[in-house]
Amino acid sequence: MLEKKLAMFPLDKIQITDDFWKGYMELVRTHVIPYQWEALNDRIEGAEPSRCIQNFRRAAGLEEGGFEGMVFQDSDVYKWLEAVAYSLTWHPDEALEKTADEAIDLIARAQQPDGYLDTYYILNGLDQRFTNLTDNHEMYCMGHMVEAAVAYYHATGKRKLLDVAAAFVNCAYENLGREPGKKRGYPGHEVAEMALAALYGITKDKRHLELAKYFIDERGQQPLYFAQEKKESGAEFFWKDSYFQYQYYQAGLPVREQDKAEGHAVRAVYLYSGMAEVASATEDQELFEACERLWNNIVEKQMYVTGAIGATAYGESFTFDYDLPNDTVYAETCAAIGLIFFARRMFEITKDSRYADVMERALYNGVISGMSLDGTKFFYVNPLEVVPEASQKDFNKMHVKVERQKWFGCACCPPNVARLLASIGGYAYEVSEDSIYMNLFLGGDMEAVLDGKENRFHVETHYPWDGEVTVQVENAQDSEFLLALRIPGWCRDWSLQVNGQDQNAAVEKGYACLRRTFQNGDQIRLQLSMPVTLVEANPRVREDIGKVAVMRGPVVYCLEEADNGDQLQQLYLQEQPEFQVQYEKELLKGVVTLTARGKRVSEKQWDARTLYQPYTGKSYEEQTLKFIPYYAWTNREPGEMLVWVRI
Amino acid sequence: MLEKKLAMFPLDKIQITDDFWKGYMELVRTHVIPYQWEALNDRIEGAEPSRCIQNFRRAAGLEEGGFEGMVFQDSDVYKWLEAVAYSLTWHPDEALEKTADEAIDLIARAQQPDGYLDTYYILNGLDQRFTNLTDNHEMYCMGHMVEAAVAYYHATGKRKLLDVAAAFVNCAYENLGREPGKKRGYPGHEVAEMALAALYGITKDKRHLELAKYFIDERGQQPLYFAQEKKESGAEFFWKDSYFQYQYYQAGLPVREQDKAEGHAVRAVYLYSGMAEVASATEDQELFEACERLWNNIVEKQMYVTGAIGATAYGESFTFDYDLPNDTVYAETCAAIGLIFFARRMFEITKDSRYADVMERALYNGVISGMSLDGTKFFYVNPLEVVPEASQKDFNKMHVKVERQKWFGCACCPPNVARLLASIGGYAYEVSEDSIYMNLFLGGDMEAVLDGKENRFHVETHYPWDGEVTVQVENAQDSEFLLALRIPGWCRDWSLQVNGQDQNAAVEKGYACLRRTFQNGDQIRLQLSMPVTLVEANPRVREDIGKVAVMRGPVVYCLEEADNGDQLQQLYLQEQPEFQVQYEKELLKGVVTLTARGKRVSEKQWDARTLYQPYTGKSYEEQTLKFIPYYAWTNREPGEMLVWVRI
Repeated sequence: MLEKKLAMFPLDKIQITDDFWKGYMELVRTHVIPYQWEALNDRIEGAEPSRCIQNFRRAAGLEEGGFEGMVFQDSDVYKWLEAVAYSLTWHPDEALEKTADEAIDLIARAQQPDGYLDTYYILNGLDQRFTNLTDNHEMYCMGHMVEAAVAYYHATGKRKLLDVAAAFVNCAYENLGREPGKKRGYPGHEVAEMALAALYGITKDKRHLELAKYFIDERGQQPLYFAQEKKESGAEFFWKDSYFQYQYYQAGLPVREQDKAEGHAVRAVYLYSGMAEVASATEDQELFEACERLWNNIVEKQMYVTGAIGATAYGESFTFDYDLPNDTVYAETCAAIGLIFFARRMFEITKDSRYADVMERALYNGVISGMSLDGTKFFYVNPLEVVPEASQKDFNKMHVKVERQKWFGCACCPPNVARLLASIGGYAYEVSEDSIYMNLFLGGDMEAVLDGKENRFHVETHYPWDGEVTVQVENAQDSEFLLALRIPGWCRDWSLQVNGQDQNAAVEKGYACLRRTFQNGDQIRLQLSMPVTLVEANPRVREDIGKVAVMRGPVVYCLEEADNGDQLQQLYLQEQPEFQVQYEKELLKGVVTLTARGKRVSEKQWDARTLYQPYTGKSYEEQTLKFIPYYAWTNREPGEMLVWVRI
Repeated sequence: MLEKKLAMFPLDKIQITDDFWKGYMELVRTHVIPYQWEALNDRIEGAEPSRCIQNFRRAAGLEEGGFEGMVFQDSDVYKWLEAVAYSLTWHPDEALEKTADEAIDLIARAQQPDGYLDTYYILNGLDQRFTNLTDNHEMYCMGHMVEAAVAYYHATGKRKLLDVAAAFVNCAYENLGREPGKKRGYPGHEVAEMALAALYGITKDKRHLELAKYFIDERGQQPLYFAQEKKESGAEFFWKDSYFQYQYYQAGLPVREQDKAEGHAVRAVYLYSGMAEVASATEDQELFEACERLWNNIVEKQMYVTGAIGATAYGESFTFDYDLPNDTVYAETCAAIGLIFFARRMFEITKDSRYADVMERALYNGVISGMSLDGTKFFYVNPLEVVPEASQKDFNKMHVKVERQKWFGCACCPPNVARLLASIGGYAYEVSEDSIYMNLFLGGDMEAVLDGKENRFHVETHYPWDGEVTVQVENAQDSEFLLALRIPGWCRDWSLQVNGQDQNAAVEKGYACLRRTFQNGDQIRLQLSMPVTLVEANPRVREDIGKVAVMRGPVVYCLEEADNGDQLQQLYLQEQPEFQVQYEKELLKGVVTLTARGKRVSEKQWDARTLYQPYTGKSYEEQTLKFIPYYAWTNREPGEMLVWVRI
């Protein structure tokens, strides 16, 4: 009953042609992937060296020297390989594939006879391996290796990295578990859980699923493995003064007993993604219900309107229900990406659009805000309110950067953005034997076998700037299947036509469902009405009382100093504003901007020498407010920015 | 021209009988002073030992052992002695004086032949003295010793501690300065500057004033002494990653070039107090103007409505103009006290009520908020907005305590509160040969020679709950002098009578000035109209946009969860609220409370599962808001608190 009902669209069967997304994909292919390869090889002038490839060369015995860089440095090449794999599916590139193959050869040469493969321990002493799972990221690196291997196998059909990864997994399986002689450890930084489930999907080796399930079920059991590790090593527990303690690692309780998203936000959603995978692969209803509880806690209590998560820089973590500060926020790009990972898996089990709604929210806002429009600079932290002087002079906001930063050697967010964008088609469409679900609306061509017959789909849209989506079906034989079109949660008014005929389609779990025999040339037209919408937050969110966020379709808007002057806190929207909606082709690579009459708190009764004075009533001056899409902020001159505006 | 025009009222010539303040003074005398003496002697069960007296005993050779405790531990006994001294002026106590004399004997026995007296270096190696002025607080301890010595001399006429202190000062004078063979150092934590000026007032030893002036003028000169010390010791500069760098110590620039209050707030206002002292003692107009600039920067751009200063916990420091967050605030009790020190000195030079206005603002709000009504618990941090869960789970607010804490061994704020409250009369009244200024309105009896003749004053008032103040003059001979009554900045309507006759008194720099021949029995009646006032902040203060603070007289009010429920961010005042003003004798030791009809953002259209929804206009429910004085918050059950309320 809990089995996955849908699968990610095979990336080799989809060609994205979308105005909006294709540009991002090309940036990843032409800028990010080549840049990262240079970074991995320490060839970026002025950047801190990564040492990633160097560590593999040393571990493989190709050169002398010890381990350098961060303890999780191995994962960088795996993330790169994963992005490369996706890129190869829609843009074959012999030279790139050759480079990737060579990297895989190098990785394979570093592998130990028993399959072990972490250069940190290979170079620092294998006797210490599996002694600091809490903090030393061995299983995290393994997880990313598996994800790369799966992607590369799907993209190229080549098994080499898959075999290397499987061997490392088998080594972990031999060393970790409940059986006598094994350590009862599990990953300090999650990712292996979902990776192992994907590996099992290919290998069908039960050990791979078993290890994933063990990692999930053992987590948080007493006596706490992480605490024992600290005790044995004598090392101090880094989070001893925190309120979250081992919940930093989502290990304060068995995962089935957890009902609040806590601790490091990226680790949390990676874990939950793995839990969803294992729940469906093992048909574990109880585990699935834990996923639902944690999901609900996030989206009902702890998610920013941009789909970002993680309210504080301290531990890069969740804080508590309704605590969503806009200016001291963490909102790591990777965490929003992880939420998408979690969402996709929950959707695949449930076919419920509420998961895809969040996927869309995070994608168009909190994720792509993480990359500059030219693909060269990245945010880790995606604030909803920025004052440049505060970022410089208020320690609580020093992590909040006013401009995206160049990619550094030990980056996590940039490669995560790269691998997501390079595989975006897989998040847009999902299939089963007799259904195709459209979750994201992006233009492209897909091929799928439905009803046992070949069908091609040609999708055109100018989404997110316009709500019209057309789907042209091409097939040699009539085919009966379900075409399910998501009616987004933000959409109040929509229509659906087939070959010009209005359809009164049933809506199931948020999807307009066309169950019919599709013939060659059938044309489906979905029209989503996309007015500007003001959104308010639950009044328990302290920071957003008396404020609204401006949205149009899935896009959250913001005010920037460049358009509106500084002191953005002084600006108010009118109670029922009329917005001018304009597509500005030359602005920020082409965006729809919104302008409305508003007002600004008057400073006329104030002189610069007065800090407090008796209240004499409200006093404003008229001002036109111009909003741009949030994701595009600080691609011009840096300055103040604000999402939640007073009303 | 810059000489001090007024002097603090001699504490031995004043008896406070005031309802409001006498209670605090008695708490200091009966609770705080005895408790601290036990703490200094490590006799408080469950508290971390102070080791202060132990260190002196060891330094004096009375027992074996090394230095223990914080590097500035010596200062604790000096602060205690200062509070004791003040207490003895209004409550002679032979036993207490004997205990103090014995402590002074012990201190004297620890003094080295050349006058040096810091137990940290006496016990750790005198060869290291004067090598870490940046961080090791030698001159801070000396400063507090001098302040204690001056107070004890004024209170008892006994010179012993004064001589000990002067000898230490002379030792510092021999070691620090611009002359060849001396180190060009100055205090890392200021306080000595103002202390030395006070010492000079008694000793008239020019070295004492010279050293103060040198400390001030050398500060921030290039090459920077503190940076050289770091270089020589090889120690890392703790604030290397901060934006303020050596401005943490107010040493980034020569003090005359500084125009923004920066760095550690307590150190800053202690320095500025010393600068004001030296400016007046040396008639240094340029230095005075630097004081004015720094004063203006604080009160025009960086002061909370409670008179608190220091916007961030990082470095316990100022941040930048108009940055006054209410919830992540530092607002250390000591900093508000230091602002009062600075204010008094500026007032004594200028006779301008704007300084006394700030003194009053800080005293009734940001200072006494630091002590519980029973005198047993203390705040270091005085927030203007508190949510208990945030203090527990948001790292940015973990320094913000929801309840005052018991006094610990290494306390700074509690003894500072103690010495201020024990000497409050000296802040209330100031005198010259032919004038008496009333800055604070508190009931009591004073004696002063004015016009060469003995005059007694009997003041009665129920301030701050009522704005009526009566002054009865008693003298044997008619006396011609100025009685200057401050008309507070918050007061818009007032009247003045002498013997029942309305006076049309001239107002000079904020003082209603009665210049006349006063006869025995003259009765002066000042009536300050004290309506409830809503105050707004400059619209550049981001946190306070759309909000007001409620004040009545000098008292800032707040909302507490105990009276108003939780989720205080949902509460709004009506645009023109009518307040019920009620003196509640049994509440919080007797306070005036304010109630008004207001409203609360309705949660009716929300369910607990919805975080964001389309804005449908504003929706409120009626609610009565009850305000209590800010200083008295969290003296009942702990909960949310809010000063700036929406309107």
